[in-house]
Amino acid sequence: MNEIKIFAPATVANISCGFDVLGCCLDGIGDEMIIRKSSKKGVRITKIIGEKLPLETENNVAGVAALALLNKLNKEIDFGFEIEIYKNIKPGSGVGSSAASAAGTVFAINKLLDEPFSILELVEFSREGERLACGSPIADNVAPALFGGFTLVKSTNPLEVIQLPTLPDLYVVIIHPQIEIKTSDSRAVLPTTISLEIATRQWANLGSLVHALHVENYELFSASLVDFIVEPHRSKLIPDFDKVKEASVQAGALGCGISGSGPSMFAFCKGNQVADNVSNAISEVYQRTQIPYHVYTSKINTQGVKII
Amino acid sequence: MNEIKIFAPATVANISCGFDVLGCCLDGIGDEMIIRKSSKKGVRITKIIGEKLPLETENNVAGVAALALLNKLNKEIDFGFEIEIYKNIKPGSGVGSSAASAAGTVFAINKLLDEPFSILELVEFSREGERLACGSPIADNVAPALFGGFTLVKSTNPLEVIQLPTLPDLYVVIIHPQIEIKTSDSRAVLPTTISLEIATRQWANLGSLVHALHVENYELFSASLVDFIVEPHRSKLIPDFDKVKEASVQAGALGCGISGSGPSMFAFCKGNQVADNVSNAISEVYQRTQIPYHVYTSKINTQGVKII
Repeated sequence: MNEIKIFAPATVANISCGFDVLGCCLDGIGDEMIIRKSSKKGVRITKIIGEKLPLETENNVAGVAALALLNKLNKEIDFGFEIEIYKNIKPGSGVGSSAASAAGTVFAINKLLDEPFSILELVEFSREGERLACGSPIADNVAPALFGGFTLVKSTNPLEVIQLPTLPDLYVVIIHPQIEIKTSDSRAVLPTTISLEIATRQWANLGSLVHALHVENYELFSASLVDFIVEPHRSKLIPDFDKVKEASVQAGALGCGISGSGPSMFAFCKGNQVADNVSNAISEVYQRTQIPYHVYTSKINTQGVKII
Repeated sequence: MNEIKIFAPATVANISCGFDVLGCCLDGIGDEMIIRKSSKKGVRITKIIGEKLPLETENNVAGVAALALLNKLNKEIDFGFEIEIYKNIKPGSGVGSSAASAAGTVFAINKLLDEPFSILELVEFSREGERLACGSPIADNVAPALFGGFTLVKSTNPLEVIQLPTLPDLYVVIIHPQIEIKTSDSRAVLPTTISLEIATRQWANLGSLVHALHVENYELFSASLVDFIVEPHRSKLIPDFDKVKEASVQAGALGCGISGSGPSMFAFCKGNQVADNVSNAISEVYQRTQIPYHVYTSKINTQGVKII
């Protein structure tokens, strides 16, 4: 195999009660990438379509992740890799654009090298792309992008990722308002300290959400999708967040929250009929604003990056 | 049925990463109680053996829990109840002494009335005993005492309790130093605020502990038994806590922490051979002190209060 074409999925991180640890992988939104062996050693980004992003390997998340992988390879190879990126996920949208590029790249190169690395190692390499993108080697988007389904980042140092079960009939509706929230702003609104009592309620919900996934209890999953800590602050940066949330729940969503650090919002739904209703309901909210937006509906992607 | 004799189990609350929400039920430690119908209406504590505790119904946790149950009964009954309590669990030991008395009482009265109430309702009544004992209607001991196994108190208002699976070969070793820690002291050392970063690590561990119980992964269960928040403060009130913890882990324990608000400490072990080793190791630590202590070993009690 000399060339591989893949689907690099979008992901939702910071799922409500699971700030910084809980993410899931999407099917309906993602980039496409072609990675091929080349006779020239090293890693080159040869094409980026759809977004204006750096082509220099060291300045591109895909390039940096690829280099991290190759640095850990314990044998000399006499060829290199070319990467073509067809972006559908807008950087800064809150659904893991940089994670998709990084995860897709290392997945593909690992395949082309006959899989010397485990999925967890691929997450480790992809985090180097995240370090370039946001200054910190976060794993909560790259983990679900590579493992698929729901993942819990138990620890970042050392990296420990748990693959959680998913609910079979679960859909995610994403609304992406076409606005920019600066990373510095979304960080600045975060509290640095929180009350022990509120923290206790948050971890009770995360525990019960994990249980709900195991026992396939949609009602408990819904009741656990609560964020007492981050959402009250970050939601102020997103126009009409409260209206979107209310409309989605009224249309039958199991819960709604901020995807990553926004501005995208997610709504979990049981079944595609409810997802359609929720998609319409939250679109209506944004039609009343002057803000352009995109809405996507997706099943949970239990596989992660896929060969296409 | 006019009389019922029961085993009212001790419980471990505040299990490491599950402060205020996660508890489990023990088999090897508990009180015995006899509850019988009497022709005289109302509730009377007729005997308490083993500890000096109030006999007046309204001043006794068992009495208060019984009254809470009878107040919710939607029919008139022309008889009352007598309660005999044979205490083995020392009040203030940190293994749910008041919870055992309250839970045992409402379990038995519910049986004698042909079970008009659900287990969750019994937890609700028992919390009134806890309110008398500690000023707050906490549920994290009465929930495992009544449900058995591991329980997660998802919410206290409204009360929501999740019964978690248990690990089949799990043992708990308890060491109870015969010292008194004032509730006011164990509360005073608690931080009122914590850093978001530490809280995040705590809920990652609670999520992974719940997952570990579901997939029967002892290693992950062990790795999740970490408390960054409460233990560093409360452990200072318990003589030689660090030595007990170190000795238990060196002897093979999966993890060790403070039971409830102490002074008892728990150590989880896989298999009874390891439990024996841990029991010996932590006994040795306390033999070197001048402090009297008791050590107990128990399997997880998956049934809760039992008829004997």
